[in-house]
Amino acid sequence: MPQYRAPLDDFRFLYHEFLDLDGLGELPTMAEVSPDLIDSILEESAKVAQELLQPLNEVGDRIGCKHDGEAHTVTMPEGFVEAYRQYCEAGWSGLVADPEFGGQGLPTFIGLAISEMNNAANPSFSAYPGLTLGAYEVIHAYGSEEQKQTYLPNMISGQWSGTMNLTEPQCGTDLGLIRTKAEPNEDGSYSITGTKIWITAGEHDMVDNIVHLVLARLPDAPEGTRGISLFIVPKFLVNEDGTLGERNGVVCSSIEKKMGIKASATCEMTYSGARGFLIGEPNRGLMAMFTMMNAARLVTGIQGLGMAEAAYQAAVTFARERLQGRSLGGAKSPDKPADSILVHPDVRRMLMISRAHIEGARALGLYTGVQLETEQHHPDEAVRRKAGYWVELMTPIIKAHFTDIGFEVTNLGMQVHGGAGYVTDTGVEQFARDVRITQIYEGTNGVQALDLVGRKLVANNGENLKAFFEPVQAFLAEQSGKEAVAEFVTPLAEAVQALQETTAWVYQQMARDPIEAGAASSDYLKLFALTATAFMWARMAVIARAKLDAGETRGGFYQAKLDTARFFMTRMLPDRLGLEAKVKAGAGPMMALADEAF
Amino acid sequence: MPQYRAPLDDFRFLYHEFLDLDGLGELPTMAEVSPDLIDSILEESAKVAQELLQPLNEVGDRIGCKHDGEAHTVTMPEGFVEAYRQYCEAGWSGLVADPEFGGQGLPTFIGLAISEMNNAANPSFSAYPGLTLGAYEVIHAYGSEEQKQTYLPNMISGQWSGTMNLTEPQCGTDLGLIRTKAEPNEDGSYSITGTKIWITAGEHDMVDNIVHLVLARLPDAPEGTRGISLFIVPKFLVNEDGTLGERNGVVCSSIEKKMGIKASATCEMTYSGARGFLIGEPNRGLMAMFTMMNAARLVTGIQGLGMAEAAYQAAVTFARERLQGRSLGGAKSPDKPADSILVHPDVRRMLMISRAHIEGARALGLYTGVQLETEQHHPDEAVRRKAGYWVELMTPIIKAHFTDIGFEVTNLGMQVHGGAGYVTDTGVEQFARDVRITQIYEGTNGVQALDLVGRKLVANNGENLKAFFEPVQAFLAEQSGKEAVAEFVTPLAEAVQALQETTAWVYQQMARDPIEAGAASSDYLKLFALTATAFMWARMAVIARAKLDAGETRGGFYQAKLDTARFFMTRMLPDRLGLEAKVKAGAGPMMALADEAF
Repeated sequence: MPQYRAPLDDFRFLYHEFLDLDGLGELPTMAEVSPDLIDSILEESAKVAQELLQPLNEVGDRIGCKHDGEAHTVTMPEGFVEAYRQYCEAGWSGLVADPEFGGQGLPTFIGLAISEMNNAANPSFSAYPGLTLGAYEVIHAYGSEEQKQTYLPNMISGQWSGTMNLTEPQCGTDLGLIRTKAEPNEDGSYSITGTKIWITAGEHDMVDNIVHLVLARLPDAPEGTRGISLFIVPKFLVNEDGTLGERNGVVCSSIEKKMGIKASATCEMTYSGARGFLIGEPNRGLMAMFTMMNAARLVTGIQGLGMAEAAYQAAVTFARERLQGRSLGGAKSPDKPADSILVHPDVRRMLMISRAHIEGARALGLYTGVQLETEQHHPDEAVRRKAGYWVELMTPIIKAHFTDIGFEVTNLGMQVHGGAGYVTDTGVEQFARDVRITQIYEGTNGVQALDLVGRKLVANNGENLKAFFEPVQAFLAEQSGKEAVAEFVTPLAEAVQALQETTAWVYQQMARDPIEAGAASSDYLKLFALTATAFMWARMAVIARAKLDAGETRGGFYQAKLDTARFFMTRMLPDRLGLEAKVKAGAGPMMALADEAF
Repeated sequence: MPQYRAPLDDFRFLYHEFLDLDGLGELPTMAEVSPDLIDSILEESAKVAQELLQPLNEVGDRIGCKHDGEAHTVTMPEGFVEAYRQYCEAGWSGLVADPEFGGQGLPTFIGLAISEMNNAANPSFSAYPGLTLGAYEVIHAYGSEEQKQTYLPNMISGQWSGTMNLTEPQCGTDLGLIRTKAEPNEDGSYSITGTKIWITAGEHDMVDNIVHLVLARLPDAPEGTRGISLFIVPKFLVNEDGTLGERNGVVCSSIEKKMGIKASATCEMTYSGARGFLIGEPNRGLMAMFTMMNAARLVTGIQGLGMAEAAYQAAVTFARERLQGRSLGGAKSPDKPADSILVHPDVRRMLMISRAHIEGARALGLYTGVQLETEQHHPDEAVRRKAGYWVELMTPIIKAHFTDIGFEVTNLGMQVHGGAGYVTDTGVEQFARDVRITQIYEGTNGVQALDLVGRKLVANNGENLKAFFEPVQAFLAEQSGKEAVAEFVTPLAEAVQALQETTAWVYQQMARDPIEAGAASSDYLKLFALTATAFMWARMAVIARAKLDAGETRGGFYQAKLDTARFFMTRMLPDRLGLEAKVKAGAGPMMALADEAF
């Protein structure tokens, strides 16, 4: 079984050398965040991931969640209940939550690193605190004071968990088709009736109560997405003194058998006149849910990244130990029966692609985490807004690209293993099955691409795009003419120019025909992701180059960054050439085939 | 659950309009092969796939094979034993086998279509007759007359099955490390002792006897690959009168739990002084095994293609039925609550990529099948040799590319389904799990790429390359200046020129440093596969254009071919641009990272 080791070296490099955390000094949430504090949180979190969560990853897959159809209960695999209790008691469930309700108020960009580690170790487990945090955020942002006091402290402490109830059998992406009904009761509450499907953590035995956030329609609601309201529906109603009252009319009627994340209960929830409480404005429920969805999309991207790291590590371990064949350049270990497969260029290719994807994504994710923190907490509104534009632009890119590379890298990890990769006991095929859902849920990656092209490209008079191109151009101007880093800066400059041209082309085409937005979207998102990752790699390479020039090696770390940056620029970034051409082929060839010919 | 329908229309087009079967008139195996015979075999085979094999695909995955550790037996999932009996009794197990031993002697290129259908319907089932055919081929080519008479008739009739025993715990790709011993007995037989792993169909309850072909070392054998011999080791020894005798000393000691193909028993075989019979020359066993491996590699490619087709069909069915959202260009079905997702460009993108991959691969596979038939049976040696060069060149390309697209298309099929794609009951995630092994077994796709660059590029004084470039150039010359097909021919011409330049570059680099061969290999193979597929699409487009110009529509079939060809040329072939650049980046950036830095 794979032994995950949290990539603390890379986190330290990013937090202390790559990100400009000093620039966040004005943020109230940063007051007590010292480099030492960050390091100690990362180290503690690494222990939790490695020692508490990862040992349960295999049993979670093997045993999965068990549903009792009569009692409507879901039983977690052995070890999960106790691990969840330990996890929450140590304070991890409330790490980034509001201190007013018992949280520790740490910045989100630290939460992202923790999320990566947890998901590398045990993605099924991580779903439960993840969903709870999402539900917390909605109640925190849109709930009444009474609702916050009633629900948040127990969610932050981990005694209660939370869910998001959007999907119904007839509607997933298209939430305008929601049918679940909310009928007003005399006491101001509502009776919720309907069926919700694919509800992660909808039922389980790790907590005392589950707080469901449910999208439903009021009797007089307008059709479509403008007639959807949001309700809190607790599994157990809460008495005025905060103790648990009667069982509410919502049950888990079945759970799905899935390709992976088998210890993450995917529930069908049946609401039969369950008592619910309106949160926020009537008919404005979707907006509230989308606030949370955006955070959830970033975290989904991080899930992909975490599993990629776990698979990469397993592949490296295997490649070092497996002796098979000889180097094409002559035996490297003539004393052994064969060389380690690390000598083979194609094995290196798979490992280099993996690490270049992972480290580039990690940098982009944390960079975006800093922008998110700035957007949420900076005292200056103009600064907040600018940071927000970056976050809006990058959210669909991070969700889609990080989950795509999650799937690519977990599969490369399997491929490095050869036949052993396909055998369950090796543990690496589980990564590929588990990560596959991340490309689908929280809005499929196709939906992300359309969000990028159809919304983010045109919104805010182009401010979202500026939020990316301005700092890139500033970086390029700053590095221009520096011979030592030209091999990293020049390919970035070319990619940025091509992305700008392609963006202008897409923008014009979609003004003519909105179908063009959809036709361009997926390839355009990939192009943008490659370019944004190139920006991260060029920045990292500049730092590493400077350190090496100053005589610092950090045990080979800076040289490895340069080597990986060079691989990215020469053997990954060129994919942009095909993507540009494909985008510019337009919608015609994509839409021509007659419906009946498929 | 998906309902597979064999793509008979496309097969008919390929056999009757695309392939030049008339040119095969001189082949003895073609004497009785009329277009009508081909059609009726295809139709019967489609029924078998749809009605006999596909209904067992889900139970095969759900129940899998069961191993009894004490009795060393493997029990197949319910329905498999009876289906196997029916399959063999109807003559399918011996369709392409030698009539001298009870086969029907039909050409391999018909066998490939049947293999595609069977693998689309039930890849686990298909492994058993597939392995038997592989073992048949080795005995047929290298066995003594007595060995042929002893084993072949019962293998052809399907009463006995066959296996290939290559892999051991310490050796997969590197067969030079084989340790299994063969010690001579006084009666001319050998005592085989050792452990073989990942032996497909090594034990099961569908046949009376299992004929294992086992690689092992004689006592005085030279080290490495030049000291490996091949033995027939039957599960039950065969008496002189052909009846089954005593149980031989080989047992299935365990079976693997795997990601997919769960009804294909992957066995660890323990040989404890089992009686074996040398086949072919001592120490020349690997050559015999590789003869069969090459055929097996083609069939492995076809497996990928078959599952891709099954997943594509499931995705199309879902896309037609699923109503979600509205067309970006305005509602297409205003009377319904939403449009079918077929209106969304990104759904079309996924379906068009799938069909362009599938139909292009199917054409390339059958085209290669005709070359294979020519190589094996043409009376003129020069013609045989030329056809053989094509087959040698295309074998690694077909194995790697078809299995890569198998994985890509099955995953696109899941993605079209959204959340439903991840749920086991939908049946589509099984395709992705099942097909994943095809990229690994019969030589990983990385091994295929190295075979292409390291062997096929340099072998036979470039004759292998000529076998591809000559007919392409002839086609380009023939179509040059024809305006109506220029949109297909011009991109092919550009791709061919670029491939030639890239080939020359790779050739020069690897002459300087053999590591360069490995560094170029995977991207170069993809580039070659794209170009070869473009050749197929251009040829199909020229035929379709001519038919349409002559007023024939075939119910939209020819127009669909043109539309799909156009999609391939404009939105898939451009990937070559990135691949060319990546190949030409060379080995440097791939090999630079220090071993300890991974």
